[in-house]
Amino acid sequence: MSARAIPEATVQRLPVYLRILVDMAGRSTTTISSEALAASAGVNSAKVRKDLSFLGSYGTRGVGYDVDCLIHQISRALGLTHDWSTAIVGLGNLGQALAHYGGFAQRGFRIAALLDVDRDLVGQRMAGLEVLHVDEIERVVKEEEIAIGILAVPERSAQEVADRMVAAGIGSILNFAPTLLSVPDHVSLRKVDLSIELQVLSFYEQRRQAEATLGERGQHGERGEQPEPT
Amino acid sequence: MSARAIPEATVQRLPVYLRILVDMAGRSTTTISSEALAASAGVNSAKVRKDLSFLGSYGTRGVGYDVDCLIHQISRALGLTHDWSTAIVGLGNLGQALAHYGGFAQRGFRIAALLDVDRDLVGQRMAGLEVLHVDEIERVVKEEEIAIGILAVPERSAQEVADRMVAAGIGSILNFAPTLLSVPDHVSLRKVDLSIELQVLSFYEQRRQAEATLGERGQHGERGEQPEPT
Repeated sequence: MSARAIPEATVQRLPVYLRILVDMAGRSTTTISSEALAASAGVNSAKVRKDLSFLGSYGTRGVGYDVDCLIHQISRALGLTHDWSTAIVGLGNLGQALAHYGGFAQRGFRIAALLDVDRDLVGQRMAGLEVLHVDEIERVVKEEEIAIGILAVPERSAQEVADRMVAAGIGSILNFAPTLLSVPDHVSLRKVDLSIELQVLSFYEQRRQAEATLGERGQHGERGEQPEPT
Repeated sequence: MSARAIPEATVQRLPVYLRILVDMAGRSTTTISSEALAASAGVNSAKVRKDLSFLGSYGTRGVGYDVDCLIHQISRALGLTHDWSTAIVGLGNLGQALAHYGGFAQRGFRIAALLDVDRDLVGQRMAGLEVLHVDEIERVVKEEEIAIGILAVPERSAQEVADRMVAAGIGSILNFAPTLLSVPDHVSLRKVDLSIELQVLSFYEQRRQAEATLGERGQHGERGEQPEPT
């Protein structure tokens, strides 16, 4: 299996499958059909089977996929079977929340450095680490072999911090600031929009309220028994 | 156009398209092809055209879609053209970060209430609001017409808080705790996994390092000029 051969769209879906499978394993489910995985991930089952075929995983007819096995295959494809060192730059509320967020270590993302520009924060200990001044970024990236920079500074300084990350040799940046960044072509950049899932909820909330209004007008309300489309 | 007719998988992609389009508009781009939108969203262009057709949006042959028009259509379909009132429960670092996060208000999610169980936090002012005790949740949900509850408490108390949100009449819950929750069928639940995008970065970082190793072995390294698969 070559990592190069996996299409970008598939790469983006693999973490979603992984989250569902880890949930399943937590509920002691040992096998899952492509249909069940597809329904949870919001894609069709043919797409799921195609995506998993890139990992060399084909499941068993009539049985489905082995959950633990699939967790391992997806983790390996995503490079989650070894630890990555990350650095958080910006230790306001969001940065501190990320420093303490259990979900990163669960997935093999070790937070190896915390950096900020604020002299009041520098020297403080958080999540077992001392906060360093951002001027030390170049040294820290080399010493700790930081692969991924997590950017949690305010919008106005986000581009400047991204530039410093790139200059220090960081090849992948995860941007939490709600703003656009420019990076050189050789740098991977992903943006987290914390409102994405809220927008999905908004859709269903709007539908629910429309149905409640219809119900009040004497038609059949369906609150509490609406089928989820797949 | 009926909101009911939009498939769930499409609903999940609409916020992704919207983020890309808002970025485009910020770069003064006025039209976009389905191919360009597809490449940024990590899906194929036929899927984009199908998704947008549910909104009654078909673009213009040879020109593409009008960016501003599409932003409006997606926003309307998602119910983002009117404001939703939300409440954040749990005002540790993550809750405080969310209370101050500019990305929510940008999308029409008004934070109308902050609640916590910690007597040291209750009564404090944050982001223009007074923190209330979670015992007041039922009253606040009614008075402020809270549609969406944002759950930012530690894992161990997440289920209990979700139960209280449901009992108070909240119909949609956004869960930031890295844990599984059970809610009744009539409640919409979405979970935010802050590590999803990190996992996508991990994939590309792994590929980059594999290529660098190949390069050191005397083959052609492609660092800095790797084409992104589409």
